[in-house]
Amino acid sequence: MSTRTLLISALLFGVGWSAPAPEPPQRKTLTMADVLAASTASDWRPLDPENTLYLELASGRVVIELAPAFAPRHVANVKALARERYYDGLAIVRAQDNYVVQWADPDAEKPDRARKIRNARRTLPPEFERSLDRTVPFTRLPDGDVYAREVGFSDGFPVARDPRTGKMWLVHCYGMVGAGRDTAADSGGGTELYAVIGQAPRQLDRNVTLLGRVIAGMELLSALPRGTGAMGFYEKANQRVPIKAVRVAADVPASERSALEVMRTETAAFQDLIESRRNRREAWFQTPAGHIEVCNGPFPVRLMSPGAR
Amino acid sequence: MSTRTLLISALLFGVGWSAPAPEPPQRKTLTMADVLAASTASDWRPLDPENTLYLELASGRVVIELAPAFAPRHVANVKALARERYYDGLAIVRAQDNYVVQWADPDAEKPDRARKIRNARRTLPPEFERSLDRTVPFTRLPDGDVYAREVGFSDGFPVARDPRTGKMWLVHCYGMVGAGRDTAADSGGGTELYAVIGQAPRQLDRNVTLLGRVIAGMELLSALPRGTGAMGFYEKANQRVPIKAVRVAADVPASERSALEVMRTETAAFQDLIESRRNRREAWFQTPAGHIEVCNGPFPVRLMSPGAR
Repeated sequence: MSTRTLLISALLFGVGWSAPAPEPPQRKTLTMADVLAASTASDWRPLDPENTLYLELASGRVVIELAPAFAPRHVANVKALARERYYDGLAIVRAQDNYVVQWADPDAEKPDRARKIRNARRTLPPEFERSLDRTVPFTRLPDGDVYAREVGFSDGFPVARDPRTGKMWLVHCYGMVGAGRDTAADSGGGTELYAVIGQAPRQLDRNVTLLGRVIAGMELLSALPRGTGAMGFYEKANQRVPIKAVRVAADVPASERSALEVMRTETAAFQDLIESRRNRREAWFQTPAGHIEVCNGPFPVRLMSPGAR
Repeated sequence: MSTRTLLISALLFGVGWSAPAPEPPQRKTLTMADVLAASTASDWRPLDPENTLYLELASGRVVIELAPAFAPRHVANVKALARERYYDGLAIVRAQDNYVVQWADPDAEKPDRARKIRNARRTLPPEFERSLDRTVPFTRLPDGDVYAREVGFSDGFPVARDPRTGKMWLVHCYGMVGAGRDTAADSGGGTELYAVIGQAPRQLDRNVTLLGRVIAGMELLSALPRGTGAMGFYEKANQRVPIKAVRVAADVPASERSALEVMRTETAAFQDLIESRRNRREAWFQTPAGHIEVCNGPFPVRLMSPGAR
């Protein structure tokens, strides 16, 4: 860890650090490009193939990182559904502007035609939040939040915590993936999934189970034509976007996996990165914002180097 | 104004109100649908044709309400550009996922081919913020904000204020429209315009001149294929989306105008509406958020009744 990153950590998070300063005391002025260029291999981690989902569309692959630390039963069930090929041949049925894209069984409401489930579960108890466990990684953002007492990042996911209730939960930022449900809290389970494609709908936090985040291929969802029916549902069957397959990456031959790695969020480099986004130092900016919202956090993803693959 | 709306105003904004209560004292539980159904004609206003812009694409019309109270010179210049048909035949040149769609002269950098300007201005001094004038309508949101001291709504636009600096400014919510610029603060002027299509990029606030908001047709921009070049620029000319025309609504025959009206934001009904979005009362919600971000504010638009048109 460099002196530079330590210094910025101290400024941001009040970490005690008082070694002789080999550099001037003024605030560093790194851009995001600087931070990424200075990052080392240990600032990145590969995706765990057992917790990575591929949503395969005719237009390409959407890569979703699953969050078993926050929704263990839903993650296990979505993987079980994928492994029994529940999703294959289903479709994206909804694209509501500035809100969500959703995929599901278009015949889910028709008992005689609905896709059968063999081993997985159709519904599960909700995992809207989990107990606040301080051993779960949490890089707190000191900028505050309109919705939650504490917000930050945990293993790359945007997270909120409330020490009063002793709970923590994933938050609805752009690209987050959740399990749709009906009115009953326990009516979801992963047979229908949605991804956020607009302004963070934070009102959904703690009301629906989030279970992952889109890591790559987001534009294959966000640029879909919006549905013209109520809530953005496609009105005609031929407007739906067929799902070729949903696979757990571990079940895909290694040579066919997306060789991606994501930046760790428990590092000094990530704290540098946040600062580079909080106060933009690129020449274009006249007035650095001085603050950053959790859903404006950067989530760098890159191709693994061939040697690391 | 009904007792109901007064009561909610009092609860939300600390307005003194102590008339005998004809209804139980508990907090009202209105949904957005309830509020809209109860709204009266005076809760709505038509768009001013002189401050409404139509961006005409092959796919349809994007309706933009201009904000002369915040960017008078840019608004006047964009109207002048439209009136000399500067934009006609130009194109959407950029669609960057979770950020902006931008339209401009694809040949702007080529002196011999760039579109000429006759009467309008190519560049203007920035209008990143304006002086805080308390006679400008401002319905403050008491929920706070990560970026600004005060946020709220002014004539339907999301706005921030800072009493310390004596400034107020439009904020970068979904659908807001601004004037692209180069590195110099005074290098914009409206020849290229952008609309926000993702998570509110609040770091742009006070760094670029916002001048309006998309009122209708947003999906014609937000669902465009993302450009694959740097910053989402389309790499090939044939990927660009041609602009048929940009017109000031006042210059369009009345029968061809979009007959839209927007909800006023300085009314008790609007405060009811905000509350209905802050604490969702629809049966689906288990845990009302209790808070709302300015960029999650509702901006209702509806067709004018035939009689009003």
